[in-house]
Amino acid sequence: MNVGGIFPALTTPFEPDGKVSISGVKANILRYNHIGLAGYVVLGSTGEAVMLTRDEADSVLAAAKEAAAPGKLMIAGTGAESTSETITRTKRAAALGYDLALVKTPYYYKPAYKAETYIHHYRAVADASPIPVLLYSVPIYTGITLETSEIVTLSEHPNILGIKDSSGSVKRLGEVVAGASPDFQVLTGSAPVVYPALSIGVRGAVLALAAALPEACVELFEYAKHGEHAHARELQLKLVTASKKILSAQGIAGLKYAMELRGYQGGAPRLPLLPLKEEHKQPIAAAVAPFHPATARA
Amino acid sequence: MNVGGIFPALTTPFEPDGKVSISGVKANILRYNHIGLAGYVVLGSTGEAVMLTRDEADSVLAAAKEAAAPGKLMIAGTGAESTSETITRTKRAAALGYDLALVKTPYYYKPAYKAETYIHHYRAVADASPIPVLLYSVPIYTGITLETSEIVTLSEHPNILGIKDSSGSVKRLGEVVAGASPDFQVLTGSAPVVYPALSIGVRGAVLALAAALPEACVELFEYAKHGEHAHARELQLKLVTASKKILSAQGIAGLKYAMELRGYQGGAPRLPLLPLKEEHKQPIAAAVAPFHPATARA
Amino acid sequence: MNVGGIFPALTTPFEPDGKVSISGVKANILRYNHIGLAGYVVLGSTGEAVMLTRDEADSVLAAAKEAAAPGKLMIAGTGAESTSETITRTKRAAALGYDLALVKTPYYYKPAYKAETYIHHYRAVADASPIPVLLYSVPIYTGITLETSEIVTLSEHPNILGIKDSSGSVKRLGEVVAGASPDFQVLTGSAPVVYPALSIGVRGAVLALAAALPEACVELFEYAKHGEHAHARELQLKLVTASKKILSAQGIAGLKYAMELRGYQGGAPRLPLLPLKEEHKQPIAAAVAPFHPATARA
Amino acid sequence: MNVGGIFPALTTPFEPDGKVSISGVKANILRYNHIGLAGYVVLGSTGEAVMLTRDEADSVLAAAKEAAAPGKLMIAGTGAESTSETITRTKRAAALGYDLALVKTPYYYKPAYKAETYIHHYRAVADASPIPVLLYSVPIYTGITLETSEIVTLSEHPNILGIKDSSGSVKRLGEVVAGASPDFQVLTGSAPVVYPALSIGVRGAVLALAAALPEACVELFEYAKHGEHAHARELQLKLVTASKKILSAQGIAGLKYAMELRGYQGGAPRLPLLPLKEEHKQPIAAAVAPFHPATARA
Repeated sequence: MNVGGIFPALTTPFEPDGKVSISGVKANILRYNHIGLAGYVVLGSTGEAVMLTRDEADSVLAAAKEAAAPGKLMIAGTGAESTSETITRTKRAAALGYDLALVKTPYYYKPAYKAETYIHHYRAVADASPIPVLLYSVPIYTGITLETSEIVTLSEHPNILGIKDSSGSVKRLGEVVAGASPDFQVLTGSAPVVYPALSIGVRGAVLALAAALPEACVELFEYAKHGEHAHARELQLKLVTASKKILSAQGIAGLKYAMELRGYQGGAPRLPLLPLKEEHKQPIAAAVAPFHPATARA
Repeated sequence: MNVGGIFPALTTPFEPDGKVSISGVKANILRYNHIGLAGYVVLGSTGEAVMLTRDEADSVLAAAKEAAAPGKLMIAGTGAESTSETITRTKRAAALGYDLALVKTPYYYKPAYKAETYIHHYRAVADASPIPVLLYSVPIYTGITLETSEIVTLSEHPNILGIKDSSGSVKRLGEVVAGASPDFQVLTGSAPVVYPALSIGVRGAVLALAAALPEACVELFEYAKHGEHAHARELQLKLVTASKKILSAQGIAGLKYAMELRGYQGGAPRLPLLPLKEEHKQPIAAAVAPFHPATARA
Repeated sequence: MNVGGIFPALTTPFEPDGKVSISGVKANILRYNHIGLAGYVVLGSTGEAVMLTRDEADSVLAAAKEAAAPGKLMIAGTGAESTSETITRTKRAAALGYDLALVKTPYYYKPAYKAETYIHHYRAVADASPIPVLLYSVPIYTGITLETSEIVTLSEHPNILGIKDSSGSVKRLGEVVAGASPDFQVLTGSAPVVYPALSIGVRGAVLALAAALPEACVELFEYAKHGEHAHARELQLKLVTASKKILSAQGIAGLKYAMELRGYQGGAPRLPLLPLKEEHKQPIAAAVAPFHPATARA
Repeated sequence: MNVGGIFPALTTPFEPDGKVSISGVKANILRYNHIGLAGYVVLGSTGEAVMLTRDEADSVLAAAKEAAAPGKLMIAGTGAESTSETITRTKRAAALGYDLALVKTPYYYKPAYKAETYIHHYRAVADASPIPVLLYSVPIYTGITLETSEIVTLSEHPNILGIKDSSGSVKRLGEVVAGASPDFQVLTGSAPVVYPALSIGVRGAVLALAAALPEACVELFEYAKHGEHAHARELQLKLVTASKKILSAQGIAGLKYAMELRGYQGGAPRLPLLPLKEEHKQPIAAAVAPFHPATARA
């Protein structure tokens, strides 16, 4: 299995009454199907997975799988705090036809979680999982960073395919590429460093920004792949600015508004995430403008 | 309602096959009933609440309420990531006869959570809750600290009774006591600073350590209450050392072992929390020894 | 030597042209001499020691010693980044008649500084020093925290008298009091926790706040010493609020303005520390007002 | 002035008695002169500048300037805590013939240092400096990060030429390249991300690693400059591993030992930095081995 390419981290749209919008989930994917995305990440951090009940999560997984075009790699976020619940969710995703499980680090009992905790946890999940596992390190949300030595140790497990590293540390990406076995696949979760990361051997990216600007993200990947370095640099710098104005400044609420501007189902996130304020809409519109529709390749 | 006094943060015992031990939950409480504890905190951080399914959580709440002696104040941990799920859990706790809801801060989307997020969240929960709410700030696990200004603002809500502050910052405890209305009740969650905290107007404490050493914790509270300052200082310093050796060093696994040594249902925590290693048992036994049974008042 | 009591961390006044005001240094001390302070800390963090040249530092040390009344314990900040420079400064302070050297942790090469670095450094300084040494842990400025185990190890050195711990962690203060030898003297550097700290065996305090409000700080110490707990609590809560409005909000610039309001030589700090803005003066005046002159005992 | 290229951050060798080895400073530079380095950074963090007296610092600056071949760009570290001392040091460096001043952020009074503090400080230094100024952000040592918005604001000053950013954040490098004026020159201080940084428009690098492995660092720069991307990637990954084993693991002591292995003047750092332990020598020898002498181009 090859996870090279761009995966949008899908958002979860909600109805005005707060319920998950299953039709919105499907509508977005049907549009994404026409762009050169490698697949979809469902129920990641961007998907507000931690806000959903188990039933809601199941319905989103099923809807996304149903809407996705054949050949798209389907990745389900299945990490929970306990090892047993993580395994339960992973098996459910496999039963729903998902190709890969994206397993974020447990993170609540930080003072008690050591390297051996994570090694034991991921091995237990990978042993029990019917589908390959991607490690997921996202310190901005969890406060936990998987360190190079832990990742390299886990890379030897036959059912651990790779990692999504959202630390934004290109140094760590390089250390893992240099230190892990050659078939261990590294993805970055950070839009501002996609091209730098690809330049040192990262395979692809899972990007929240690709939920709003999928064409440009795919274009960047293609430039890098085909050695069009001047174009890649130029587009990367544009995406640095867009990511800063949309995601660094306004998070999921900003991303959903950017999606709306580009014709996707957006809406407000679930509380306690506050809806985007009126005064923050214009800067996001300005950030999206350069990408609509000129850079679209599809 | 007066939350002055000592509340143990109850652990959740598990059967050898990993299931919640409902009989263990009850057995521990039946023993605690004979000590001068003010009540019980069920499904807090120490109770591994984040490891439990919704059904398991409900069964623990019901069992604890059933076993508790009349007059014990029952406090349920009901904080979830989303505002709506927090309200759902709070209402369920109220329906099961709980007196207070202990609501930890949402904490996943740290970069998006600002002061206004927490103020909006807690007001919505307090507005909807049939029972009074205690704020709960526990940065060691969540990475989120409720700041003095936020606490003081929230202290004005008629259905927010007080706060459990587990930051360990006596400075913040003092700022809140000095800044909030006189009927806002402040509890510390940090065993090493109970007496210093009481010295500046904190009402009581919710303590993991009190699950293993309830008599000593109650004794410390009584010394402070009755102005026996030399005794309070001496006992506090003993508890500082015990807390360091048991909880700082070995977390919930260490606490559960200390409970076993004192005749309670302990056992291993749920994975990924690893069971206590053999070599760590002796230091805990040494830490518990001075408290058994000499300091017991009951 | 007994460091029980209150020590103001002296500020360094500057002339309008930016030069150190030696007359200002002396004038302030001549006024402090009439209050029940145990002594003076010269060239601490509050004294902007890191802003001074070697010659300026020497002139301040000499002036302070000259102005101080007999019997006041004289403590010189002598910590530098290198061990050799720290020893040089310490010997100079001893030659100028200082009683104690306050040695902050080296802090620049954080990733390389381990427990053994600090143990080796402090032993070398204490071995070479003609006067007793106080450890100084001030993480708010240095980013370095001396941990309990390091402090306890160092407490055994015959020429290390104690520690000024400015971490604000009452838990650590308790651990050190409980763990170190009984003759190791612990001082807190945090005004908001003086009374809580004294309640568990801390000997005294080195306080920036005492440069502006020395009478109240001394009064608090006396209340605690004589078991007037209700008065101590009430005054501590007043000082919590004052410290927050003056020092937490406005730092050294705020402290110097508060000193001016109380008749001391204040002035602006040295750049890059910016002078106090006009709009921040009123809140400091309000914070100082309750202490002038009613609580003055002298 | 163009700072494109590789600059080693020079170490300061010491004699066995602890004095600065001026002959060692010169000997190293005389060897570096034959490699394609763009210039030298003297008295940076790697040069243990914070460990040196003013006289020692002056003698190192003079010696380095004397030994450097014509055409090498000379950069002096001149940042001090106070604005006035920073200006004094900067003028001295200019008088000694240095081309650029590298000015690290003041960092002691962290809670008081805001964006406006840094903007005011750097403008005052740049206004007064006879030579152009490079901003220097090195959070690993200072705990202070210059943020994108501050850097972009300062980039407009005519005497601020660029920045050395040692945060290791390729995201920030990209934000600055995208946001600052095109003639603002960005250097990275992080060996593991040189090629990724160059890929998005960074001009060059100031590297501690280049004090031990200058040829390989220059070779990497040349590969990137000439579009030999496969070679650049391969060499970058080798340098990632070398940097991790030498600098991340053993800091300046490890770097100096690696220098010795490659024929430079190394030796121990100044205390409190501890000398390299025997058991840490072999891993450094292993890290250096692949670079000796095969990758040398000169």
